[in-house]
Amino acid sequence: MKFIIHNTDKASSARAGTLETGHGKVETPIFMPVGTAANVKAVHVRDLRDDVKAQIILGNTYHLYLRPGTDIIHRAGGLHKFIGWDRPMLTDSGGYQVYSLTEIRKLKEEGVTFQSHIDGSRHEFTPENVMDIQRLIGADIIMAFDECTPYPCDYDYAKNSMGVTHRWLKRCFDQFKATEPLYGHEQALFPIVQGSTYRDLRVASAEAISSFGAEGNAIGGLSVGEPHEMMYEMTELVCGILPKDRPRYLMGVGTPANILESIALGVDMFDCVMPTRNARNGMIFTKNGFMNMLNNKWKDDYSVLDVEGTSFVDQQYTKAYVRHLFKAKELLGGMIASLHNLAFYLWLVGEAREQIKAGTFSSWKDAMVKKVTTRL
Amino acid sequence: MKFIIHNTDKASSARAGTLETGHGKVETPIFMPVGTAANVKAVHVRDLRDDVKAQIILGNTYHLYLRPGTDIIHRAGGLHKFIGWDRPMLTDSGGYQVYSLTEIRKLKEEGVTFQSHIDGSRHEFTPENVMDIQRLIGADIIMAFDECTPYPCDYDYAKNSMGVTHRWLKRCFDQFKATEPLYGHEQALFPIVQGSTYRDLRVASAEAISSFGAEGNAIGGLSVGEPHEMMYEMTELVCGILPKDRPRYLMGVGTPANILESIALGVDMFDCVMPTRNARNGMIFTKNGFMNMLNNKWKDDYSVLDVEGTSFVDQQYTKAYVRHLFKAKELLGGMIASLHNLAFYLWLVGEAREQIKAGTFSSWKDAMVKKVTTRL
Repeated sequence: MKFIIHNTDKASSARAGTLETGHGKVETPIFMPVGTAANVKAVHVRDLRDDVKAQIILGNTYHLYLRPGTDIIHRAGGLHKFIGWDRPMLTDSGGYQVYSLTEIRKLKEEGVTFQSHIDGSRHEFTPENVMDIQRLIGADIIMAFDECTPYPCDYDYAKNSMGVTHRWLKRCFDQFKATEPLYGHEQALFPIVQGSTYRDLRVASAEAISSFGAEGNAIGGLSVGEPHEMMYEMTELVCGILPKDRPRYLMGVGTPANILESIALGVDMFDCVMPTRNARNGMIFTKNGFMNMLNNKWKDDYSVLDVEGTSFVDQQYTKAYVRHLFKAKELLGGMIASLHNLAFYLWLVGEAREQIKAGTFSSWKDAMVKKVTTRL
Repeated sequence: MKFIIHNTDKASSARAGTLETGHGKVETPIFMPVGTAANVKAVHVRDLRDDVKAQIILGNTYHLYLRPGTDIIHRAGGLHKFIGWDRPMLTDSGGYQVYSLTEIRKLKEEGVTFQSHIDGSRHEFTPENVMDIQRLIGADIIMAFDECTPYPCDYDYAKNSMGVTHRWLKRCFDQFKATEPLYGHEQALFPIVQGSTYRDLRVASAEAISSFGAEGNAIGGLSVGEPHEMMYEMTELVCGILPKDRPRYLMGVGTPANILESIALGVDMFDCVMPTRNARNGMIFTKNGFMNMLNNKWKDDYSVLDVEGTSFVDQQYTKAYVRHLFKAKELLGGMIASLHNLAFYLWLVGEAREQIKAGTFSSWKDAMVKKVTTRL
C-alpha cells in the first residue's frame, strides 16, 4: 500500500493525499460509509458507487464472522465479490462490537470469549484468529484486535487495557506476517492507539503503535461519549506522534463538524454510522445545516430536498414529500436520507481536500463548521 | 382517454391495446405497481421509471386522504407532482381500505363513517366526497366508491351491497360530471362490478355498470379469498358482458399465473401488492418459478439473482448475498426483491402483449403458467 501526501495546510495539520490499494486509489481525507453486515444499510451498491461516489467502504469482522460466516464469504471469493464492490474496503477487527453488543464476555490475556448477540452461541476472538478471519474476509485494510475502553474509564483500567492491546498487537503482526492474503490482492494491517482520555497513556500508546512501522495507524477509543473537546485534544496529541507519512484513521467519527475539526488535526480517514443511522430516523445533513424531516416546518415546503446536494435524490424529491414518507414510516424515507447523507459526507471530505490543495482549508473549515452545526 | 385495441388473440379473449392518458400512453395488458401511501414501497421513483419500466402506478384514496391529506397534495400541485412521477396514475376509491383496515365503521345509504387506522379520528366517505378527493389527488384514472364484499358472503348481503354500489355509482358519476379536473389533465372515472361469487349478481352488476358507458370498467370483489377457479369463472362471465372496446381492470390481482389466466379472459389492467409485499418477506418471482430467499438452498449459491431478469439487481447481486441480507433482516434485501419482482411483473405483461401481437399467446401462456407456479 502506498500513501502519497500531495499538500499540507499551512494553518493546520490537514493534508491531502492518495492511498493506493489493490482495489484502486482513495483520495484523502476520506469518509468511509459503514457496511456493517456486508451492506451499507438501505443503499444499493450501484448507488454507493455512482451516486454517493464512495471510494472505500467498511465491513465489520464481528458481524461478518457471525453472519453469513467466513465460510460463505470465502467461497464467494472474499467480501468484495460477495458484496459486488470492486473498490477498496476496510474491516474493523470486531473488538468494539464484542464490548458493545455482547452481554456475556470474558477477557483474558489469550483473547475474549463471548456470546453471539444473534443466537447466544459461544465464540472466542484472539489476535491470531481475528487476523485469520480478516484474511478470509479479504478487505484491503484490516484492523488489529484491541480492547476499546468505554468513557468514562478509570486510569488503572485504561492503563491495563492499553497493555493488553499492545501485547495483542504484537501477536496480530506475528500472525499477519505468518499468513498470506487469499484473493490475490495485498492487505495492510493498521494498529489502533488506545489510552482512553489520559494524555500520558495516549502518548505511550501512540509511541508503542508507531514503533510497529505499520502502513497506516488508527486512533480508537474516542467518540464513545467523551466531550468533543476532549476527543480533539487526544486526537491532536496522538496525531503529533504518529508517523506523518502514513495515513491516520480516526475510528467511529463523527458529525460533519467532528470530521472537519479532525481533518485540521491531521486525520486522513473516517467512518461513522451517523449519516446512515440518523438518516433512518429522519435527519438530513447539508452544507447549510441539519434538518429533522419529521419537523412540521417541512410539511408544506415543496422545494427540493437539498438544492445544493450532489445525490440524485436531492433534486428528485421535495422536503414535504420526504417528510410525508417519514411520518408514514415508509422505507423510502430512510433510503432517500441515507443516499443524501452519504453523498453529503463524501462531498464534505472531497471539498475539504480541494480546500487543502488550494491552501484555503482553515478559513473554509471555520466557516463550514458554523454552517453544518446550524439547525434548519 | 382513448383506448385502441391493436390485436386480439384467436384462441382466447386476450387483447393488446394502448390506453392514452393526459400523462402519456399505457400499453396493455399492463401491471400497475401499487403506491399506496404516495410511494411504491422501498423503490425510488427513478428506478420505477428506468429500471422497472412501470407505465402507470396506483395511489390509494383512503391512505392519501388520511396522510399526508388532500391539502398537502393539492398545494403540491397534485399527486403526480407530490411524488415526482410524470407518467399515468390511477387512484382506487378507498372502498376496499375502509372495509379492510378500519375496525369501527358504519355503512348507510349516504355513505360510510369510519375511524382512521392511524389515530382513531372519525371521517366520512360518500360517493360525492370521494370524487372530490380524487379530483384533489388528480390521478388520470379514478375509481368509483363501492362496497367490496368479503368472501364468503351470503347471497342477500351480496345482493344488497351490490344495490348500494350501483346507487353510489350514479352519485359518483353525477358528482364527477359536476366537477372539473384541477391540474390541467383529464381524469376518467371507472365504475366497479361487484356481486361476490354469484353468477346472477355478477351478470346484473356487469350490465348495470356497462350502462354507464364509462371510459373503462373494473372488476372488484375478487381475489379476496375465493378459490382461483371461482375468480376466473366470475372474471370470464363479467368480461363477456363489459364493453369490448373499453379497458377492463381486474382489481387486486394477483400472482403471475392469475395475471396470465386473466389476460386470456380479456383483462387489460392489473394491480397487486404481491410483488412488493412478498418481496419484503423474501419471495422472488421469476419466469422459471418462485424462490423463497430465506431457504437454505441459496446459502451457497453464488450465481446471480436471476440470470434472465431485466432489473439491474438481477446481475448485480447473487442469490447467496440476497439470502444473507434477508437472514440478517437488512432493508437492502427487500429493496432488491421489490425491484426484481416489479421488473418481472412488467416483463411478464409486456411479453404477454408481444405474444398476443404475434398470435402465440395461448400456447405461451399455458407453458408460462406451469413455469411461474414452480417452486425453485
